[in-house]
Amino acid sequence: MPGNSFGKLFKITTWGESHGKGLGVVIDGCPPGIPLTENIVQSMLDRRRPGVSISSTSRKEADKAIIMSGVFEEVTTGTPIMIRVDNKDAKSEAYEPFKDIFRPGHGDLTYLAKYKIRDWRGGGRSSARETVARVAAGAVAKAICEKENITILAYTSELGGIKAGSRDLSKINNNMFFCPDLDAAKKMENRVADVRKRGDSAGGIVEVLARGVPKGLGDPVFDKLDADLAKALMSIGAVKGVEIGAGFSASEKLGSENNDPITSQGFLTNNAGGILAGISNGDDILVRAAVKPIPSIMIEQNTIDRFGDQRTISIKGRHDISAIPRINVVCEAMVSIVVADHLLRQRAIQP
Amino acid sequence: MPGNSFGKLFKITTWGESHGKGLGVVIDGCPPGIPLTENIVQSMLDRRRPGVSISSTSRKEADKAIIMSGVFEEVTTGTPIMIRVDNKDAKSEAYEPFKDIFRPGHGDLTYLAKYKIRDWRGGGRSSARETVARVAAGAVAKAICEKENITILAYTSELGGIKAGSRDLSKINNNMFFCPDLDAAKKMENRVADVRKRGDSAGGIVEVLARGVPKGLGDPVFDKLDADLAKALMSIGAVKGVEIGAGFSASEKLGSENNDPITSQGFLTNNAGGILAGISNGDDILVRAAVKPIPSIMIEQNTIDRFGDQRTISIKGRHDISAIPRINVVCEAMVSIVVADHLLRQRAIQP
Amino acid sequence: MPGNSFGKLFKITTWGESHGKGLGVVIDGCPPGIPLTENIVQSMLDRRRPGVSISSTSRKEADKAIIMSGVFEEVTTGTPIMIRVDNKDAKSEAYEPFKDIFRPGHGDLTYLAKYKIRDWRGGGRSSARETVARVAAGAVAKAICEKENITILAYTSELGGIKAGSRDLSKINNNMFFCPDLDAAKKMENRVADVRKRGDSAGGIVEVLARGVPKGLGDPVFDKLDADLAKALMSIGAVKGVEIGAGFSASEKLGSENNDPITSQGFLTNNAGGILAGISNGDDILVRAAVKPIPSIMIEQNTIDRFGDQRTISIKGRHDISAIPRINVVCEAMVSIVVADHLLRQRAIQP
Amino acid sequence: MPGNSFGKLFKITTWGESHGKGLGVVIDGCPPGIPLTENIVQSMLDRRRPGVSISSTSRKEADKAIIMSGVFEEVTTGTPIMIRVDNKDAKSEAYEPFKDIFRPGHGDLTYLAKYKIRDWRGGGRSSARETVARVAAGAVAKAICEKENITILAYTSELGGIKAGSRDLSKINNNMFFCPDLDAAKKMENRVADVRKRGDSAGGIVEVLARGVPKGLGDPVFDKLDADLAKALMSIGAVKGVEIGAGFSASEKLGSENNDPITSQGFLTNNAGGILAGISNGDDILVRAAVKPIPSIMIEQNTIDRFGDQRTISIKGRHDISAIPRINVVCEAMVSIVVADHLLRQRAIQP
Repeated sequence: MPGNSFGKLFKITTWGESHGKGLGVVIDGCPPGIPLTENIVQSMLDRRRPGVSISSTSRKEADKAIIMSGVFEEVTTGTPIMIRVDNKDAKSEAYEPFKDIFRPGHGDLTYLAKYKIRDWRGGGRSSARETVARVAAGAVAKAICEKENITILAYTSELGGIKAGSRDLSKINNNMFFCPDLDAAKKMENRVADVRKRGDSAGGIVEVLARGVPKGLGDPVFDKLDADLAKALMSIGAVKGVEIGAGFSASEKLGSENNDPITSQGFLTNNAGGILAGISNGDDILVRAAVKPIPSIMIEQNTIDRFGDQRTISIKGRHDISAIPRINVVCEAMVSIVVADHLLRQRAIQP
Repeated sequence: MPGNSFGKLFKITTWGESHGKGLGVVIDGCPPGIPLTENIVQSMLDRRRPGVSISSTSRKEADKAIIMSGVFEEVTTGTPIMIRVDNKDAKSEAYEPFKDIFRPGHGDLTYLAKYKIRDWRGGGRSSARETVARVAAGAVAKAICEKENITILAYTSELGGIKAGSRDLSKINNNMFFCPDLDAAKKMENRVADVRKRGDSAGGIVEVLARGVPKGLGDPVFDKLDADLAKALMSIGAVKGVEIGAGFSASEKLGSENNDPITSQGFLTNNAGGILAGISNGDDILVRAAVKPIPSIMIEQNTIDRFGDQRTISIKGRHDISAIPRINVVCEAMVSIVVADHLLRQRAIQP
Repeated sequence: MPGNSFGKLFKITTWGESHGKGLGVVIDGCPPGIPLTENIVQSMLDRRRPGVSISSTSRKEADKAIIMSGVFEEVTTGTPIMIRVDNKDAKSEAYEPFKDIFRPGHGDLTYLAKYKIRDWRGGGRSSARETVARVAAGAVAKAICEKENITILAYTSELGGIKAGSRDLSKINNNMFFCPDLDAAKKMENRVADVRKRGDSAGGIVEVLARGVPKGLGDPVFDKLDADLAKALMSIGAVKGVEIGAGFSASEKLGSENNDPITSQGFLTNNAGGILAGISNGDDILVRAAVKPIPSIMIEQNTIDRFGDQRTISIKGRHDISAIPRINVVCEAMVSIVVADHLLRQRAIQP
Repeated sequence: MPGNSFGKLFKITTWGESHGKGLGVVIDGCPPGIPLTENIVQSMLDRRRPGVSISSTSRKEADKAIIMSGVFEEVTTGTPIMIRVDNKDAKSEAYEPFKDIFRPGHGDLTYLAKYKIRDWRGGGRSSARETVARVAAGAVAKAICEKENITILAYTSELGGIKAGSRDLSKINNNMFFCPDLDAAKKMENRVADVRKRGDSAGGIVEVLARGVPKGLGDPVFDKLDADLAKALMSIGAVKGVEIGAGFSASEKLGSENNDPITSQGFLTNNAGGILAGISNGDDILVRAAVKPIPSIMIEQNTIDRFGDQRTISIKGRHDISAIPRINVVCEAMVSIVVADHLLRQRAIQP
């Protein structure tokens, strides 16, 4: 049953495996007239590149975006945009030893249960490499959003238990963790080094801020803007929790604390995270995604093989210590896709 | 743009306003041969009845479920099931004073921004009363799940800052909060009484446990089981956060702590919440939804009216102190719908 | 698997059986601000009323439209519109003798094969009565079209082998067959009387003309305007063929005959039926649907029962001699729904 | 608004332009475990190859199918299958003269009206070359059908006014027109030579026969099997009419002639074309598509340019005289896709 499409009017369909010929996305529903080049896509893709920081895998894919269709003379035509990234530098033999073993925390066991067959090379379809296609689509979504003066930005708010204190957005690109607090970034660096030494991995929290989203986006009752954002972020492999605005902390507040008072200049607070009754209220949209630690670790773990026999596993090789910071751009892409989709949806009901 | 359908193979479409003629749901895709009566639906609807506890509104709707189609001789036929609940006891005049004022924390402002028109009577479509239709659909989904020996159960894990310590599921129906810890329930009672006295409201956390879900449900990469659960729960008006298994706490764990070791008897821990790579792994599925405090409070708040003028508002009348415990059965319904949908989806790819 | 929805942005979902409690439709995606009353719906429903002509069944249902939601102060609000028609005057006992027999030309055999259960009362879901819900939805679609000055009109171009010669649209409501040629209408009357005498039934052809459709509607490559029209009409039970513009006759033409020359005042001919490459070209849209004779006839026929035994059947009782003319308004409704849907779809891609 | 996907459980999304980098399809929902190789796809693609007959264009594309994903060790894995065909031998300069002129019978005018921009090279997305992607997807659908012993076969029943008399399916591959009547094929050859001499083009009719389709496929009320077939075929650019079984001729029959009598050995006739009430009845499914003459002709035609000025046009270059016979395999592909989709849909509702 098809689960590889997302979005209703700005609809993306991704394909590809970690160690197959390549990965990519078909974007159906992008309006005509949006300026688009391979460079625009490439510069977004480059932000999820392995090797941008010490926390990341040493696999050095080219990840070169090729626009196969839907763009003519550097402008979208309204027809499907297919963007393809070929796989290079894929060393499948590194996965040969785990061919019959279920890596804890990975989808090996569940993919086999579901499909009775699995492409074990690099995790196949369940690899984090699948997010390449999301980022490529996100670049197109961002182009739509930017035309409407909407800015969408993801950054690291926590890594390995180290929390960003301040939110100085101008600092995000000044450190390898895309962290808005340089002091915290420094501590994150130490934390990552320590975790790496143990052969372990770390998780964290990504925050995405969407600024300039007009009032009125979101389609109750099921396609609420927050519901679609929750699905978008939770559909990223490593994400285990999503919250909007005050999020989980709202559950401990009183109504008088949690309600955002309204003035003619706007809201005095933003516990709602920019969304009321599933519709954007004009304020900043703020979502957070909880990212689990990378399951591939060098420390020995207990598991079973496909025949049910007890085994141990220790995963060496080129693996990230944390999905953060590379996952930031993936979250940013997914939020951009949701906002672009709802922008188009809102147009349809206007006279 | 349509946002009132949910599910792909077990597809529900809800309709209705708080103070219109009624509300209901069309369920398209329910397999034939499922025993179904109005009593089955009614007993689930009764669990969201106002007045089941001191925390709840004093509106006493009948909420009588009428099955209009899709059932013949007490068995589903495979054709669409329409279930209707007529509105009774709706006192629209109570909302007359707020006709032009935006209640903080409500969708008044955003509905008007989106549609340029709004049915102000009782919140119209944005009322929590909309969940009546979800619960009716959930009763049908539960009937499908139960045929496969899947049990789905929601309970209160936190209310007004009081956390349930233990998880004794046998106690859930022994207290007015559907709390699995009777001591906590006692404290919740006091807390609610206190909040009521202040004219304020409280939030909480609902936990949903799905037991017996077979391995293999969930459709990567976007329709992951956890992604669909996140959307399902976040689409409930009062919910501001969703997490699966260890959820947000996973972000602070190391990989060696968070990975669930596998044995031939199953997983040793369940940080994954029963889902790996978006597919059920055979273990218990555990999701949590953060519920914000009810925005309608007696305490005076600052707001504006539709003409942009500054106003104050104090909402008297019959309102819940907390969406909890009534929202439990709504969460249970939504999780049941997701599981039923994926059960059918999984059948489609099997030979 | 759900098949009871149609349309993507103007999305309808129908429910109900011939002899159940009622039938109806949920319309999700109707833009806000469209004037709508029960009278508007009712007057369209009245056009498919049995008993409007000698060709029709003597069942006298009230078919009273009740708008349950989505309309406030006689204007649509953007929320789902549910329209319900209760079943009255349903004499299920007339169907008791055919409970276990498969009526030739009907869905008795196939519904049982598909669902293993069937509501035999009046054909259940496969009854032509299902089109009540389509017509109700069509009334809303027409209201959207009319706001854009689009006129959609269905009429009988052939009945029982009698072809309308002229196309005088002003005559359509002057005869019981909705025929644009009064001479042909006279002959149809005689033909129907003759067929009735034999205990037989007759088919015909309905033509639908959509005037004023702007250039640019239709979404290649699969949701071409003609593709959606073909599905819309072929989904009506009695329809066995659909053609656009020159249709089947185009297959015998030369390119030089079939191409419509273009001038700055428009097209010189309209073999295309107003659609080029799946997109409206601004000219009249013209579609034709071939309607089979009603399968319920008094003449004795050979068939089998559900146990596989050979039987004969002769169907007495109140049945139409032809689906024409009642099916006209159903075709008009379906074309209106397709056009309204594509109007909204086109808005979404415009800046 | 997205219109480039077709099918619900076997869902295809096509992309690509005639003279862009390539074309292709993502198939989402193909069950795992289906044997699939590039050779299987290639042999179906080869059947739409230009140059298979005198009626066809002299463009000699390689049309080499590359499976990019979803297949592992020559078996489908359940993940999306992307098949790509690169464009070679594309001479865009041949289209340069028509860059600003609307070719009659083509989508030039309507694409520009819709999108305000168009890729004029070879018709861009509106080119018949788009069907390459459909055929590739059809090869996968056929593999699913064949596993269930369903045979789907398209052939030419009419070309340029010459009708096939007999239906000897063993002869279809013995003549360049895929015609089941060798005498008619001979006449078609002469007819095509004559039309070519005049610089004109010809249309025809394709018939598709699906044998072995089990009872029970098709989802009332809108996704009837015949409704989906009608959309599938009408979505092919050159098709202007579709009929099922007796089709348009049913409109002139009496009920007693048109009903197919039922015996315990099956139906005595097949006017229904294998479909009753939208559900397959176990008999052969028979659909016919009316194909218009190719609009690109050498004969001079009147038209306008994009500035509204009157022009004449005469289209030289490598063009087919008729879409037939190449369109046969496209029709066969589309019918296969519909049947495969409904096979999966039917599984979902079975216990």
